[in-house]
Amino acid sequence: MNTGELAELAELGQQLRVDSVRAAAAAGSGHPTSSMSAADLVAVLLARHLRYDFDHPDHPGNDRFVLSKGHASPLMYAAFKAAGAIDDEELLTFRKLGSRLEGHPTPRKLPWVETATGSLGQGLPVGVGIALAGKRLDHADYRVWALCGDSELAEGSVWEAAEHAAYEHLDNLVAIVDVNRLGQRGPTRHGHDLDAYARRFRAFGWHTVEADGHDVDAVDRAYGEALSTRGQPTAILARTLKGRGVEAVQDREGLHGKPLPDAEEAIAELGGPRDLTVRVHQPPDARALHSVPTGQFTPPRWDKGEKAATRDAFGEALAALGTARADVVVLDGEVGDSTRAELFAKEHPERYFECYIAEQQMVATAVGMAARGWTPYAATFAAFLTRAHDFVRMASISGSGLCLVGSHAGVAIGQDGPSQMGLEDLAMMRAVHGSTVLYPCDANQTARLVEAMAVLDGIRYLRTSRGAGPVIYGPDERFPVGGSKVLRSSGEDRLTFIAAGVTVPEALEAADSLAELGIAARVIDLYSVKPVDRDTLRRAADETGCLVTVEDHHLEGGLGDAVSGAFTDGRPVPRLVRLAVRSMPGSASPEEQLHAAGIDAESIAAAGRLLVEEAIVP
Amino acid sequence: MNTGELAELAELGQQLRVDSVRAAAAAGSGHPTSSMSAADLVAVLLARHLRYDFDHPDHPGNDRFVLSKGHASPLMYAAFKAAGAIDDEELLTFRKLGSRLEGHPTPRKLPWVETATGSLGQGLPVGVGIALAGKRLDHADYRVWALCGDSELAEGSVWEAAEHAAYEHLDNLVAIVDVNRLGQRGPTRHGHDLDAYARRFRAFGWHTVEADGHDVDAVDRAYGEALSTRGQPTAILARTLKGRGVEAVQDREGLHGKPLPDAEEAIAELGGPRDLTVRVHQPPDARALHSVPTGQFTPPRWDKGEKAATRDAFGEALAALGTARADVVVLDGEVGDSTRAELFAKEHPERYFECYIAEQQMVATAVGMAARGWTPYAATFAAFLTRAHDFVRMASISGSGLCLVGSHAGVAIGQDGPSQMGLEDLAMMRAVHGSTVLYPCDANQTARLVEAMAVLDGIRYLRTSRGAGPVIYGPDERFPVGGSKVLRSSGEDRLTFIAAGVTVPEALEAADSLAELGIAARVIDLYSVKPVDRDTLRRAADETGCLVTVEDHHLEGGLGDAVSGAFTDGRPVPRLVRLAVRSMPGSASPEEQLHAAGIDAESIAAAGRLLVEEAIVP
Repeated sequence: MNTGELAELAELGQQLRVDSVRAAAAAGSGHPTSSMSAADLVAVLLARHLRYDFDHPDHPGNDRFVLSKGHASPLMYAAFKAAGAIDDEELLTFRKLGSRLEGHPTPRKLPWVETATGSLGQGLPVGVGIALAGKRLDHADYRVWALCGDSELAEGSVWEAAEHAAYEHLDNLVAIVDVNRLGQRGPTRHGHDLDAYARRFRAFGWHTVEADGHDVDAVDRAYGEALSTRGQPTAILARTLKGRGVEAVQDREGLHGKPLPDAEEAIAELGGPRDLTVRVHQPPDARALHSVPTGQFTPPRWDKGEKAATRDAFGEALAALGTARADVVVLDGEVGDSTRAELFAKEHPERYFECYIAEQQMVATAVGMAARGWTPYAATFAAFLTRAHDFVRMASISGSGLCLVGSHAGVAIGQDGPSQMGLEDLAMMRAVHGSTVLYPCDANQTARLVEAMAVLDGIRYLRTSRGAGPVIYGPDERFPVGGSKVLRSSGEDRLTFIAAGVTVPEALEAADSLAELGIAARVIDLYSVKPVDRDTLRRAADETGCLVTVEDHHLEGGLGDAVSGAFTDGRPVPRLVRLAVRSMPGSASPEEQLHAAGIDAESIAAAGRLLVEEAIVP
Repeated sequence: MNTGELAELAELGQQLRVDSVRAAAAAGSGHPTSSMSAADLVAVLLARHLRYDFDHPDHPGNDRFVLSKGHASPLMYAAFKAAGAIDDEELLTFRKLGSRLEGHPTPRKLPWVETATGSLGQGLPVGVGIALAGKRLDHADYRVWALCGDSELAEGSVWEAAEHAAYEHLDNLVAIVDVNRLGQRGPTRHGHDLDAYARRFRAFGWHTVEADGHDVDAVDRAYGEALSTRGQPTAILARTLKGRGVEAVQDREGLHGKPLPDAEEAIAELGGPRDLTVRVHQPPDARALHSVPTGQFTPPRWDKGEKAATRDAFGEALAALGTARADVVVLDGEVGDSTRAELFAKEHPERYFECYIAEQQMVATAVGMAARGWTPYAATFAAFLTRAHDFVRMASISGSGLCLVGSHAGVAIGQDGPSQMGLEDLAMMRAVHGSTVLYPCDANQTARLVEAMAVLDGIRYLRTSRGAGPVIYGPDERFPVGGSKVLRSSGEDRLTFIAAGVTVPEALEAADSLAELGIAARVIDLYSVKPVDRDTLRRAADETGCLVTVEDHHLEGGLGDAVSGAFTDGRPVPRLVRLAVRSMPGSASPEEQLHAAGIDAESIAAAGRLLVEEAIVP
């Protein structure tokens, strides 16, 4: 670059600073100093290296920019303005009611945002997912640029990402680390010791470059070096100053997340507003994304009376779905033999991704692939999905479409003990905004729900069980999401058992034993825990007067709460009793576990009988 | 060591293998091959380096052994037998109903276990917490030995731990990595490449030693090197074979988590059962643990009519509690200026621990310190506690006593947007077994609850708010856990608003505006979300007929579900309506947010009026 070009880049950096300061000043909040440290990094990227068609954010050849340090949103929005994607008026709506420019960026609002950030340590992992899609699914040569903060490198998820990216040789991924040495409440562990970070990335198999993040020429060369690196991802460690360019805030503590004390003076110090427009490089031609699903789903079939585990049915159905739908991809947390996701791998190895024991990266990879239009199924033990809770939460903010599958639900797993038992997963997944929560009880039902969840919006969760249970439904039965199945019913019903998953056969057996006592009990299979089939539940309440929920899950947040939620429209509520796992389980056989938890047929029948006899139970 | 001593150690290793095989065979399940790879590592540790009084597991000088690869529990139990802590009969109760020897070890059952493991990547982080307690709180020179699997090094939490341990110069911590190259479903990423792991640890600031994990002399030397290393933790990378010693399983895939195919033959191949007893080194004299709390808690006080944020009250109360109780320690996730935990730091810097942005390690540190008898308060944004969900889950399995504090709850934070809003935290925390969930609405209440939570069992959660709200209670009011406060009440009440936290003042205002319309509304402040004050709720139901819950949380798993849970004993239930955050918020002012979510005074009053007028609301 010649002197003029360098000066222009520096000017662009200053413009991004000024606009960050202006946006935060207009909002009265925000993170201008965190934006100012990275302004030159973004200026050089935008003007010189990013290939992106802002008029066509879906262009398959577009590079992908991920703002992992999501609080630097003013900088991102200032860059969008410089690229002509938004105007100055919109820039100044930052953080206001109804604005697309939220405090932290989200793709639900802005088409140029790849993933919602704001929970630190998540952007880079999602970037890894996008880069992996580029290499192994899209076969496109877009690049992924992830702008990270130095503070967020303390998050373990960043090192899951580092490991995954190097292992997969993602040379289309560049992590740009804005080492401004200051976190929210003070200095980071490593200050400006760029090599402390570089050592770590190199040990994980990355190429690294260290640069002065305010020297646009050096930054440009660093990007060039990243682009010419083959076979491994590159991390650029850029030495910067928080609040760079404004003496009152530059490199000072105690100013995180605050507008500048005197915005007008700061803007003057930065040389005043500019009106530079950047002509961003257009992306190269690229083939369109994978075509939408074509074939017909041929579900695996089981006959009534057979025994099968729902996890087996999941694996078989997933493999069949992969044949029907070219957009289905599967992610494993190194337990594919247990979840049975490996059955998909056998038939569609090119769409199966081993994420090893790194559940956060597994979900982040799914988010990245979903951002590129794929339909990911990510599976591990239900218990271990809690490891990725924050990623699931953020995925819902992104509006991301994920299928999550948790196996080994509940005490029914038996001997392995509580560490392996999903007993909080329903609560976790129900509370995710816009989620769908499915919990099948038999193999045919599982197969149909595996298909159904592919086309829903948002976070969809399927809960499967370890042990073999009876096949209750015929292979042609349908199971609409939001529905339920009434498995026992008569005009004489005096109560209703509401079960899902492993407790369905137990409830059926309980109903049979009550029938012998002359007590007719309705049985509802509530396989759709969210949305819940209010009509059927309300009818059962009206017709039978009392409801007994039975779940292999802790008392809170699961099936019982879901059923209660069907009676919150102001109507009178029926008598309700909940059977759930109330104590801490240990090791025991599955049968012993169900009995100890009070959710086996015998316990259910006893509770039902007490209730009908109008004793108040526990 | 002479040849005889070496042979004896090798024999002990074989005994541990044989007993692992026997335990798994008796159980019909378990992880013998994962035990066999690490048998020599444990034999040498037990016989030569561990200092532990099995008769006095609470001895303050005891070393601490953490089985991070918790599935190798047969090995641990075999070691307990060799040390004389359990007998052979008990060993063979492994995984059976009522046995202390669960599939994965837990301190709830066994006094020699420091922390529950079985969710991989958690033992080492907790070990860091224990080692940090040793250095900075107990001032004792016990050592922490954490036996890790190679697979689990894929978990980011391990690298949070690595970073934290090196930063704190924990030379009393040794990570022993059993590099047996096989995960559950196949080979690990790095196989037997010990240096791949060593490079990573070294880059994070650890001393490393590579050794043949089946050469007892080499292992002994490695431990010696670790013990003589000053100023940094040591990682021993030990090359081992899964299933070592039995041809049918040694170094073979597909045999994870299964008893050996022919136990009898395997035992013969291992040389048959032995009956060696190890005299484990006694711990050095050590001063007793910190004495139990002494002083009187002098809460900060606010006058009615003042305005104060509950997060501020938390910080002030915590600092005061630290003065009263010498056992209180505080952990920050690099947001102490926001959560106000930093107010504790100012008065008690020696008991304040900065964990940077690593919420998993923050909770793990708390678990480790709690295991040493301290009372930890760990605080970050409520939203970011989801990052540590699996650690909280495992802590409850440990029976660990933790105080967790989540600030910036709900949409009421305003402009920062959904990534920073805790909207799922009540659901997450309620579903934890044995948890307590508290959500104060004013400063005086917060101060009292901060004190109250210190002496509870299990996981205790306090939810605080960002903005200043009115002081509702006088400074001498008391707030029993499990209680509630009826803030408005009359014989004419036609409905009850049930609120907590920021919705309490809104509900009060709504009641006032309904009063103007001649509608008397009761208002309950349900600050104890779990356990919930059933009596008061049931009385309100009986006396007012309908209940309206109002919460700054998603609809599922929070206050509304908690209230429904008070009516699940089979009694008829009143009419119920729930107001909660049903849509995805964006950026806006706190007032706009509450209004958009339909949980401000105006919305509450409107819902109440509709309900009283017997219209069915949503």
